Amino acid sequence: MKKAQLGPRTLLYPMPAFLVGANVSGKPNFMTAAWSGIACSTPPMLTVALQHHRFTLRGIKENGTFSVNVPSADIVKETDYCGIVSGDKEDKVGVCGFKVFYGVVKTAPMIEQCPVNLECILMHTLHLGSHALLVGQIEEVHVSEECLTNGEPDVLKINPLIYCTGADKKYFAFGQSVADAFSVGLEIKKAKR
Amino acid sequence: MKKAQLGPRTLLYPMPAFLVGANVSGKPNFMTAAWSGIACSTPPMLTVALQHHRFTLRGIKENGTFSVNVPSADIVKETDYCGIVSGDKEDKVGVCGFKVFYGVVKTAPMIEQCPVNLECILMHTLHLGSHALLVGQIEEVHVSEECLTNGEPDVLKINPLIYCTGADKKYFAFGQSVADAFSVGLEIKKAKR
Repeated sequence: MKKAQLGPRTLLYPMPAFLVGANVSGKPNFMTAAWSGIACSTPPMLTVALQHHRFTLRGIKENGTFSVNVPSADIVKETDYCGIVSGDKEDKVGVCGFKVFYGVVKTAPMIEQCPVNLECILMHTLHLGSHALLVGQIEEVHVSEECLTNGEPDVLKINPLIYCTGADKKYFAFGQSVADAFSVGLEIKKAKR
Repeated sequence: MKKAQLGPRTLLYPMPAFLVGANVSGKPNFMTAAWSGIACSTPPMLTVALQHHRFTLRGIKENGTFSVNVPSADIVKETDYCGIVSGDKEDKVGVCGFKVFYGVVKTAPMIEQCPVNLECILMHTLHLGSHALLVGQIEEVHVSEECLTNGEPDVLKINPLIYCTGADKKYFAFGQSVADAFSVGLEIKKAKR
């Protein structure tokens, strides 16, 4: 299998397309972010990397809180829009018709139309070149009731977006289920015995 | 849209299923990790969160280097297996039949069968409860030539896995393309004028 060297670059599959929320000077604002992932299980934490000049980052610093909202494919236009324009110039909440709500953290605005919402307290900030890497502790998780199956979040109902780089910069939907995790690999373990 | 509160937990869509590689006492080892994301664009960096006791983490500390390998759906069994057993007890490379290669970083083993391989130098370690959050600088990216289209990585050829929690812990494939990024949102911007 011959390999091509593409140079150092930010290439991972999958990458998310999250809407990161903060109150900036008391007004809710959201920006699209693909540079994000889980950072710790206990306590639950995640990372979001934002460019230093971001309007949303100003609000996160003001309050020490932020939210991560998982959009469904239904709002792909709004999700992309929030990555193109700055909240410094546009009232994104008004333009997109987002219904904003708040949870236990009080100052982290969340989007009702996004099926999954995580509210976070900022724990650490690492200044890394072009981006500030924020580590947030997840204080509460909200899921739209219609996206639950037996009380648990159901990805087929959530219908989340995937951000994709490479030959095309596109949003993708989830596809087929491939296998059960912590299960399909047991076949190899058993075969070895 | 009524929301259910599920308590603080690590719930994001999508999450990856990467194979993180390190030489442990000179021998290549790989473990499955879903807690990962991009951390910076310039220079390109990523995060991987590993539990403190992990055998792979021992190797990352030894060498200050590691790799992130993106498996395709073809090797879902091997990917799951590498998350179930420890390299302390099993020779995962031998059991899975991984062909290992090295790049510019010299001590970060990569898997030929994975279509995308990133070699990293460890830059920062944050100790966060159950996990160590590693920030690695991406030194080189390798892509299997058969997964390129016009010299760029093509997600449809790569066929990467998505890790999914919630109602079921499953691996999913990528689905349909939903929209072009940095493009579909312009419709909202134009309509506003």
